Amino acid sequence: MLQELFTPSVQHALDIAGIFVFAISGALLAVRKNFDVFGIAVLAEATALGGGLFRDLIIGAVPPAAFTDLGYFLTPLVAAALVFFLHPEVERIQGSVNVFDAAGLGLFCVTGTTKAYEYGLGLTASAALGLTTAVGGGVVRDILANEVPSLLRWDRDLYAVPATVGATMVVLCIRFDALNALTSGFAVVTAFTLRLLAMRYHWRAPRAWNRRSAAAEETV
Amino acid sequence: MLQELFTPSVQHALDIAGIFVFAISGALLAVRKNFDVFGIAVLAEATALGGGLFRDLIIGAVPPAAFTDLGYFLTPLVAAALVFFLHPEVERIQGSVNVFDAAGLGLFCVTGTTKAYEYGLGLTASAALGLTTAVGGGVVRDILANEVPSLLRWDRDLYAVPATVGATMVVLCIRFDALNALTSGFAVVTAFTLRLLAMRYHWRAPRAWNRRSAAAEETV
Amino acid sequence: MLQELFTPSVQHALDIAGIFVFAISGALLAVRKNFDVFGIAVLAEATALGGGLFRDLIIGAVPPAAFTDLGYFLTPLVAAALVFFLHPEVERIQGSVNVFDAAGLGLFCVTGTTKAYEYGLGLTASAALGLTTAVGGGVVRDILANEVPSLLRWDRDLYAVPATVGATMVVLCIRFDALNALTSGFAVVTAFTLRLLAMRYHWRAPRAWNRRSAAAEETV
Repeated sequence: MLQELFTPSVQHALDIAGIFVFAISGALLAVRKNFDVFGIAVLAEATALGGGLFRDLIIGAVPPAAFTDLGYFLTPLVAAALVFFLHPEVERIQGSVNVFDAAGLGLFCVTGTTKAYEYGLGLTASAALGLTTAVGGGVVRDILANEVPSLLRWDRDLYAVPATVGATMVVLCIRFDALNALTSGFAVVTAFTLRLLAMRYHWRAPRAWNRRSAAAEETV
Repeated sequence: MLQELFTPSVQHALDIAGIFVFAISGALLAVRKNFDVFGIAVLAEATALGGGLFRDLIIGAVPPAAFTDLGYFLTPLVAAALVFFLHPEVERIQGSVNVFDAAGLGLFCVTGTTKAYEYGLGLTASAALGLTTAVGGGVVRDILANEVPSLLRWDRDLYAVPATVGATMVVLCIRFDALNALTSGFAVVTAFTLRLLAMRYHWRAPRAWNRRSAAAEETV
Repeated sequence: MLQELFTPSVQHALDIAGIFVFAISGALLAVRKNFDVFGIAVLAEATALGGGLFRDLIIGAVPPAAFTDLGYFLTPLVAAALVFFLHPEVERIQGSVNVFDAAGLGLFCVTGTTKAYEYGLGLTASAALGLTTAVGGGVVRDILANEVPSLLRWDRDLYAVPATVGATMVVLCIRFDALNALTSGFAVVTAFTLRLLAMRYHWRAPRAWNRRSAAAEETV
């Protein structure tokens, strides 16, 4: 068993913050897709809780936290209400939302990896599941909205790489018995910073060999 | 533990009826999408069993009822065969199918909520999972058919709201220790009636503020 | 408990081979969709492991094999790297890939059915889950790529039918107490051969009655 990384109340507050910002991104996409108020709430819930739900099913932590902690369930509804009434204002501060989303990404890749390891997964599997926790909600969001997951598209700034780096740092710390609040926090900040830099400088991942020149003729 | 709401055989017959009508709606969409006979069967199974399967995974009731009760598995195949051979006739009675689908919606939101509570979830989480049980199959159907889930679209008559009302009535009954066959039946009938009225009068949920006037220019 | 069908190491080598060829098909679709290197890896993983993951969640085998066996996780990454650098060469040998994919299909429908039965499912449910194991990864692949699952389309050669035949042979063998390495191998070979024949002679499943003549006017 790992020692507690943060005090439970701090951990919980961070989780709620991450859920909130992910829910905002789901609700904004729902508004753009012209969904009704209920669709906005569903997409907010699915985006915020989808990654953690998948993780909990995989490690056998049922019922998942999303269905046992009332705060986890109600937070996305607050986000959905906010977007419903104020979405032009929310879109105007899209930049800030992206910063919060990056914070959620950094936080979830670390807590997801840690939880997976606590449930007995190996180091590589824990990192993979931490990554899935961080990016899974966004994939569920895009599938429900019938779009190609932005995670997979080449024309989006790096998203999975920062989370992979954060998750890898956590398992390296576990491996060398150095996981504590400080190193965890450092992993969160590293993933967060890398994501901010990726957005700022439009870092992108390469596509397959021989594909770049042919891209213009592609139907995507 | 709650007392049994219905005798097991009545409960089972109601479940099979709900599964059947959901399967019909899946099979009809498969025909419209020009799928082959196997695609029709898959979409019938997924629509009929998807919501309950998700609920059972969440509450840890594995293997899910869909894989332990042969009747649950075979009923969608019967529905698929019926649609395969008779789909013009089935489409002609689409009105009746919608009535049955509304009955399935009412039934599943009540039985889903009850089962979730019996497995130890809280009241709010039970209602949320009951709602998911009722609408989940339709979402799986639309995702498999590569369409935007009709649950989320603003131009469809209310579907989730009747199920939410039914699920909420159940948890209120549990809260005040008044859940029995009579009150459960009343919740089923209320959700069923609300859905029929929503279809009859084309009740719809609002979209986000400032969005309504701009809708014409939207690409959806 | 069934006797071991194959020695564990042979079984494992066959599993890895099946995972590899399924991963190749996912990675090739990712290249065609113009995804970046990370999208290629994700689609390779999801295609290779999706079917088995679903099976393990249903039968309650958590954490799923995909997260406990490092080889299962790393193999798709090797396939993704191969496609990333060599995809024109890999596409040129698409015919061979299809042969391997058929082998994976035959293998997975047999091992999936056997594993489901070992975890206590009934014969029909075991066959259904074996079929799901074999075809599930391809469905996940197509959903992530935002395409209609090729499993469901009428204009594709038979894919589910060979797997259904293989799974049915296994449960018949179990029923008559004749499941051993020989009969299992025969079921694998039968499903494999049927799939090869379906590709060679373009066998297709019928669409719904009255639909064939009207197909030209359809929007799919």
